[in-house]
Amino acid sequence: MKPLIWQDDRLVLLDQTCLPAKEIYVICNDYRRVGDMIRKLGVRGAPAIGAAAAYGMVLAAQEGRHLSREAFQRWLNQAAQDLAETRPTAVNLFWALKRMSKVYPGKEPDEAIGALFAEAKKIHQEDEESCRRIGEHGVSLMKKLGRPLKILTHCNAGALATAGDGTALAVVRRAWEEGILTQVYAGETRPLLQGARLTAYELMADEIPVTLITDNMAAWMMGQGEIDAVITGADRIAANGDAANKIGTYGLAVLAHHHRIPFYIAAPCSTFDLETPNGDEILVEERAGDEVRKIGDVFISPPDVPVRNPAFDITPHRLIDGIISDLGLIEKPDEEKLKHFFEGK
Amino acid sequence: MKPLIWQDDRLVLLDQTCLPAKEIYVICNDYRRVGDMIRKLGVRGAPAIGAAAAYGMVLAAQEGRHLSREAFQRWLNQAAQDLAETRPTAVNLFWALKRMSKVYPGKEPDEAIGALFAEAKKIHQEDEESCRRIGEHGVSLMKKLGRPLKILTHCNAGALATAGDGTALAVVRRAWEEGILTQVYAGETRPLLQGARLTAYELMADEIPVTLITDNMAAWMMGQGEIDAVITGADRIAANGDAANKIGTYGLAVLAHHHRIPFYIAAPCSTFDLETPNGDEILVEERAGDEVRKIGDVFISPPDVPVRNPAFDITPHRLIDGIISDLGLIEKPDEEKLKHFFEGK
Repeated sequence: MKPLIWQDDRLVLLDQTCLPAKEIYVICNDYRRVGDMIRKLGVRGAPAIGAAAAYGMVLAAQEGRHLSREAFQRWLNQAAQDLAETRPTAVNLFWALKRMSKVYPGKEPDEAIGALFAEAKKIHQEDEESCRRIGEHGVSLMKKLGRPLKILTHCNAGALATAGDGTALAVVRRAWEEGILTQVYAGETRPLLQGARLTAYELMADEIPVTLITDNMAAWMMGQGEIDAVITGADRIAANGDAANKIGTYGLAVLAHHHRIPFYIAAPCSTFDLETPNGDEILVEERAGDEVRKIGDVFISPPDVPVRNPAFDITPHRLIDGIISDLGLIEKPDEEKLKHFFEGK
Repeated sequence: MKPLIWQDDRLVLLDQTCLPAKEIYVICNDYRRVGDMIRKLGVRGAPAIGAAAAYGMVLAAQEGRHLSREAFQRWLNQAAQDLAETRPTAVNLFWALKRMSKVYPGKEPDEAIGALFAEAKKIHQEDEESCRRIGEHGVSLMKKLGRPLKILTHCNAGALATAGDGTALAVVRRAWEEGILTQVYAGETRPLLQGARLTAYELMADEIPVTLITDNMAAWMMGQGEIDAVITGADRIAANGDAANKIGTYGLAVLAHHHRIPFYIAAPCSTFDLETPNGDEILVEERAGDEVRKIGDVFISPPDVPVRNPAFDITPHRLIDGIISDLGLIEKPDEEKLKHFFEGK
């Protein structure tokens, strides 16, 4: 189950808005199409967005190959800017575009295409490897929790969100392989239901025992002793460890804290934004109200009711028991620990 | 907006499963039809269920009027039992049926019909008056919070759930009339979306400013200072103040506690079950899994995914800042205070 595949000089994206009912692949020859797919959440998940945007730059270079050298550079700058404006919160998007933007300046089109493709492929492969390492570091941590585990996750931080096995779900997959996991609870993740549509689908495909709950059941399940740990992904982690992730994550962290259940974030280094000092500085995307008012094409509320629709929330570092990264575990993250962690790498 | 009307010797129920898209009224000549409507949540809300079941007993008596005296009594006993089995958690159902069951024993059919109708009408009218008083007691409390208020509510504890203005929403309505309310946030209340479908609809009809949010946004909104108080209804309150209410309520109470936001329950005396010592003894209804897997007729998840679907949760009394009843406010409820409160009444 791959969210993105590079094939015959084109980017093939699995349109995740159609899952689980239909598996539709969208062939992108055009970077704008990649941008549209990111914007509409056809491809989503911070690491997958980064990789998709990187390949989007390769497409842009292919499209502009007949331009003069100067026009080609302007065209690529514009493409990078357009892709950066598709979504504001996940930092992997900007991180990937920044890497791509270092590769082409001054190069002739053909040379630039080769260099951009090499860099995109590297980003893609690095992410796959990151997922593997997150799984390894995560499963070591899970073993220390010392019982058959029931894990709650939120949204989809899985294979569909990355180039590999996922972030939170890489830990889940490794824990299942090791025989220390008995149950995954997937919060459905309103409004766009990534937990119900994607996580349930992905784990069922791998025959990992998953039970779907509505988001508002999490507290009750925690109180009933049904949840031993919460693991989610992240879209951006600030320098002090505050983490932006799908709306609802912050609430789960507060609830876990109240029930003395450990709460972990799993994310690759590309999700850390050390230039942002803390969560207050992270821009939270507010999406269209109809995402809340409708499910599919059907209104589930009065069509003219005012709504709020922040797509993310920020979990303060003091509620995070650990960040499981590809480079290792950061326990009880704070500014000092993150600084030290990255200095050592 | 009335969930139930007695007209021409028949009970007319507004089918709330069709709201807000369609206002469909179901005419019940038959107590079993009333039972079906309760079971499928066509009529819902603890006080409204009680009143509907009471009128259901009148219908049963009308249906059985040609039976022999003994057969008539057996028929009514059976009707009371059938109606009691429609839903397990809301105590108002059992409370109303208990009142109705005291009225008919030993009576001839015609006499019994008259007596049952008088009792049902009394239950109905008492509930209307209870709502009014809850509104009065609640608004006095709200005034003490001392600022223009933004109130979060969950599910629907409004006119659609009662014979009057509602329980939680009676407080909201009175606060709006007094000019101390600036915003109501309605949590959509998955899986059956009573907040999105009913509370939003009901408040918009009264031109009270309401904003719809998904349940998992509540924590973030609290953290942003957007919520000054949480008020919900209840389906059963045990002798120590533990309260069963729509799934998600317990989570809101924990989140409110974390954010030092007052959390209130609004409920009439008929919702108190002093024979149940605490929340552990309350049976929580687990409903069909497809309520979670589907919205309307459309699957939003893999059709065969395992799910949990507890319809209620229990909020322990220590997380409740006050119960707003028709007989007055019980601050920081516990066994001692409830005992004292009801002894004085």
